[in-house]
Amino acid sequence: MDLHLASDVRDTSSIADDASGASASFIDRLLSAGLLIATDARGVYGRSAVFQDIVERFDALVMGLEGASDAQRLSFPPVVARGLIERMGYLESFPQLIGSVHGFRGTDAQARDMAAKAGAGERWEEVLEPSDVMLLPAACYPVYPTFSGLLPDRRRVVTVRGWCYRHEPSDEPTRLQSFQMRELICAGSPDQVERWRDEWLERSLALLRELGLPAESDVANDPFFGRAGRLLSATQREQKLKFEILCAVNAGKEPTAICSFNWHQEHFSAKYRIRQSNGDTAHTACLGFGLERVALALLATHGLAVDRWPEAVRVRLWG
Amino acid sequence: MDLHLASDVRDTSSIADDASGASASFIDRLLSAGLLIATDARGVYGRSAVFQDIVERFDALVMGLEGASDAQRLSFPPVVARGLIERMGYLESFPQLIGSVHGFRGTDAQARDMAAKAGAGERWEEVLEPSDVMLLPAACYPVYPTFSGLLPDRRRVVTVRGWCYRHEPSDEPTRLQSFQMRELICAGSPDQVERWRDEWLERSLALLRELGLPAESDVANDPFFGRAGRLLSATQREQKLKFEILCAVNAGKEPTAICSFNWHQEHFSAKYRIRQSNGDTAHTACLGFGLERVALALLATHGLAVDRWPEAVRVRLWG
Repeated sequence: MDLHLASDVRDTSSIADDASGASASFIDRLLSAGLLIATDARGVYGRSAVFQDIVERFDALVMGLEGASDAQRLSFPPVVARGLIERMGYLESFPQLIGSVHGFRGTDAQARDMAAKAGAGERWEEVLEPSDVMLLPAACYPVYPTFSGLLPDRRRVVTVRGWCYRHEPSDEPTRLQSFQMRELICAGSPDQVERWRDEWLERSLALLRELGLPAESDVANDPFFGRAGRLLSATQREQKLKFEILCAVNAGKEPTAICSFNWHQEHFSAKYRIRQSNGDTAHTACLGFGLERVALALLATHGLAVDRWPEAVRVRLWG
Repeated sequence: MDLHLASDVRDTSSIADDASGASASFIDRLLSAGLLIATDARGVYGRSAVFQDIVERFDALVMGLEGASDAQRLSFPPVVARGLIERMGYLESFPQLIGSVHGFRGTDAQARDMAAKAGAGERWEEVLEPSDVMLLPAACYPVYPTFSGLLPDRRRVVTVRGWCYRHEPSDEPTRLQSFQMRELICAGSPDQVERWRDEWLERSLALLRELGLPAESDVANDPFFGRAGRLLSATQREQKLKFEILCAVNAGKEPTAICSFNWHQEHFSAKYRIRQSNGDTAHTACLGFGLERVALALLATHGLAVDRWPEAVRVRLWG
């Protein structure tokens, strides 16, 4: 198999063709194979060692690429300050996806009442109060405040990996409520940032195709909320501010975005006063690999038995 | 320095003694050194590459120990099904620590109103509804349901690493709202489980002392809530169901638990019908390393300049 010809997109009907039964849905096959473990919440799965190892090895490949190995590495928890979400405009753009963390600060009696309600199968959360944190919606969010101030002449690049949350319960394995993203974030002049985005679009596509994935890039838009959101989506597409790399994962369905590229222009840098060395407002852009989606794309393309994946793919991932 | 003599606990007054200024608090020194990055939420920090690397290397050491390398490796997200928290009795025991995730399912007009309130600095969360998930309070929680049913003759051991949340905002770096735990969980007969716990108590203490930490084990109790909680805590101590490994981290303050061991007896196995091969209800126990706490203990003990740590510690961690 010539891995470099994978841009020739496969017939997606072949994707479900696996020894464990072509008729079962992809998620059912992943669960029977023990690669994912069901829990009582939709889109919240445990991962087997094999599944998580695919994630780790792919992430290591990304981190070994030119442009990633010399990026500043930071790490942030899966919760962020409530004020960050408010200030980033997330409530306006994606209210349907937020996760607001609420806690208990009541008395002994209130605690007993709360637990008794839960025990009786009643709703018990009324007594809770919003805490000072919310769930991280995209791994890059906590990075922008760290760019505040004057940038050096060269573009600045940071990389983070994080657990992201999106409130969209689904049984579709590529639409998880909680998932891992590897992101790279660039701040600099408009030219520096656009060039960086273009370089990474090419580099990411090359990596995914080397892994035998039928990956293609396309202009895209974010799922902005409501009527006003439709206008934002149209403008984003028109200005080509968002690209995605798509790959067939679910047989017979639309291809899945496994990597995305967002050029925010001055959207975040204005909020956090991120300035170019000449004092002008900087631009920022980010790119993110959906690590579970990449793992799922590999499993869909090469089959659920990792030891039977094409030799070239195995060598690239496990050396 | 003889690393094996570290059980001879140091004078904690020496711990703050570092080139960056003995008078500054530990958290201030960590922040100035760029090891942690402040955010607008207390106990929610970014981690530098150096800090996270200490975490990764220590975790790799644990995973290389006898008894860990052959454990089943699973991985779970930082959110869990709401029903798991309810069923595990967490609302009764630790209501003050919960993180309940709430989402938005309203209209366009409600979303605009919510965002406008947030923009005006008002509370905006009233429109939210409890989602089907809560934050993971301890990495081991999602593992117990996977043990349901009949166990084999041998004890069964699983290991997980996860991001845990506890609602206790604090400026004390060893009391984070969001932190990483490496846990090992054992299910089997009471004898098997108690022996496993004892083996790991010894093994963990040995590892931490090899790293030059003045680590000591002691009987402990969980911070059970309220008046009824005080009785639970006393019983737990009396029956020696919880041990901790403690280490001086904050100069002049009580030592910090960096590893803990909980023998749950039938508490979880009764809820999830985990049975020994003979049909009797099994016992479970777990142990968890607080990965940031271990990193902080190493930084407090050996100084903030990792390249000046004792050679033997560096070799053990980085090989």
